[in-house]
Amino acid sequence: MNLPEVFTRYRAEIDAGLRAALRGRKSPLYDMMRYHLGWADDKGNPLPESGGKALRPTLCLLACQSLGGDYRRAIPAAAAIELAHNYSLIHDDIQDDDKERRHRPTVWSIWGKPQAINAGTAMRLLASLALADLRERGVSDETRLRIQRLLDEDCLALIEGQYLDISYETMFNITVSDYLDMIEKKTAALIACALEAGALLASENEAVIAGYRRAGRNLGMAFQIRDDILGIWGDERQTGKPSCSDIIKKKKSMPIIYALENTRGEMRTRLQRIYGNGASPDTAAVLEILDAVGARHQAQRLAEGYSNEAMAGINALPLREASRRDLTEVLSFLIERDF
Amino acid sequence: MNLPEVFTRYRAEIDAGLRAALRGRKSPLYDMMRYHLGWADDKGNPLPESGGKALRPTLCLLACQSLGGDYRRAIPAAAAIELAHNYSLIHDDIQDDDKERRHRPTVWSIWGKPQAINAGTAMRLLASLALADLRERGVSDETRLRIQRLLDEDCLALIEGQYLDISYETMFNITVSDYLDMIEKKTAALIACALEAGALLASENEAVIAGYRRAGRNLGMAFQIRDDILGIWGDERQTGKPSCSDIIKKKKSMPIIYALENTRGEMRTRLQRIYGNGASPDTAAVLEILDAVGARHQAQRLAEGYSNEAMAGINALPLREASRRDLTEVLSFLIERDF
Repeated sequence: MNLPEVFTRYRAEIDAGLRAALRGRKSPLYDMMRYHLGWADDKGNPLPESGGKALRPTLCLLACQSLGGDYRRAIPAAAAIELAHNYSLIHDDIQDDDKERRHRPTVWSIWGKPQAINAGTAMRLLASLALADLRERGVSDETRLRIQRLLDEDCLALIEGQYLDISYETMFNITVSDYLDMIEKKTAALIACALEAGALLASENEAVIAGYRRAGRNLGMAFQIRDDILGIWGDERQTGKPSCSDIIKKKKSMPIIYALENTRGEMRTRLQRIYGNGASPDTAAVLEILDAVGARHQAQRLAEGYSNEAMAGINALPLREASRRDLTEVLSFLIERDF
Repeated sequence: MNLPEVFTRYRAEIDAGLRAALRGRKSPLYDMMRYHLGWADDKGNPLPESGGKALRPTLCLLACQSLGGDYRRAIPAAAAIELAHNYSLIHDDIQDDDKERRHRPTVWSIWGKPQAINAGTAMRLLASLALADLRERGVSDETRLRIQRLLDEDCLALIEGQYLDISYETMFNITVSDYLDMIEKKTAALIACALEAGALLASENEAVIAGYRRAGRNLGMAFQIRDDILGIWGDERQTGKPSCSDIIKKKKSMPIIYALENTRGEMRTRLQRIYGNGASPDTAAVLEILDAVGARHQAQRLAEGYSNEAMAGINALPLREASRRDLTEVLSFLIERDF
């Protein structure tokens, strides 16, 4: 399964937008960000381009172009959203005590947690400052203020989601509905923000803008649930994370919450015991229980449900045919991907 | 030494502005902020008003009024700056491992560091969102964008300063000049922001606005140096911190850096040994060295120098006579205060 072409189309311009946001910033604080973004090693030496999929900025630019807008106008917004996403990864790694991300030591594991907190929050401020470049691209003050507010509100939702995710760690009566509420905030909000921002830089039709937001929200839900599946059944060579990594970390991801909610008797007791004590989990036993209740299948069905809703939403939108095909391809990729 | 009247003048309206910024926010995340701000106990039960001096928002409103502006227009900006300051306190306490602030347990010591990181960053986002209320007060989109950018840049400076402060902990060749660079970012930037924002909501004269910023910067420098003096020689009943608290925490505050730079021979070796090892410091020995080099007197002189510069700047500004008296009173208070 290859990355759809759309992920490479805007890539160079997204990177240029991100680099513009950090240009001229000299404190070592920004070297920590350059390291996190994969631009430099821990000594500040430049690295050949790497980085993730850049899902959010790609969706932002695609949304803008799909409505006949000039996607270049949206680049500062796309860069801001990617910086906001990366701020949350830096803080997540601190909060979860994760020592590695994408086969590299995390920021805090090199510079310590106090300085990594600084790097994360500063990156979120750079996201906000990146929006200033919208002015040079002819975006009105009113629209710039609207995008600022959108990004702030969706990042606030993201933190509310992160709050829930952390608080679920010590709770055992979490339902799939609680989980969906959490990921809607933690993951779907910023993806919805990406599509909404792209749309409102190309259209003044509020119903259309709201349609993009809804599609982004559904796509974000599907994306996160697939991520949860890969966190248990993914292949390390593909995902960059050890197989069963979410079980090893005892993350209350979708398949586990489904199993906690849908097992009874002896199996439920076993699962609760594994997730309730401080010892390393018996991975094989957890996999067996997940298998017995069909947790993987249920999670994939749920992801596909959101993906179908996103698709129906996109089909109702007045977008270019070529962009419809791009978005369809992205959606299929997101729920079938192995990485 | 009493708090000048100007600190009570706007207090009720500042509090109302802060409460408006949190209104309708329901996640327990916001209860952590209400606790930090002194509005509620750790169970969410309301407390009678307390809180600190509210220096920054007071200066913002005073600056606006001093130029003949309606200070009510500036309340959302004043609230945003106070929230930005408080976000930095929540993160500072995590970074410094401080268990108490103003005689109460810190946010992280109740809810844990991961959730306190969330509360801090979310509070900084609320600061940005609070600026939206400037619209209802008749502030133009252009000015709103300018204040947004100002607040973002000064908070970025604040984090750069916090980065330096933390990195100084393990360095021994810090000079007073390094220290001044650090506090200019960590403390003076946000105070300069408060005066600049207040001025630009009342005036379009860029030279005047820049004059307020410079005065704010000098006032911020004086404020921080006096704070460092109180951190060593302050009276617990007045400051709320144990006497010598900065020595106990081995903070590289102004008097210590002055002494490290200005002692020689045996005294220098003793001081370096005390600050270089992991053991609890010999408070009496440190006080003796500080006394021998006249560190307290030097620090106070430095604070007064900045205060005088701020005063000269204020005297050159075209402000109302009554406001000039208010600002003079604030300046005298800040460099003579015992709390």
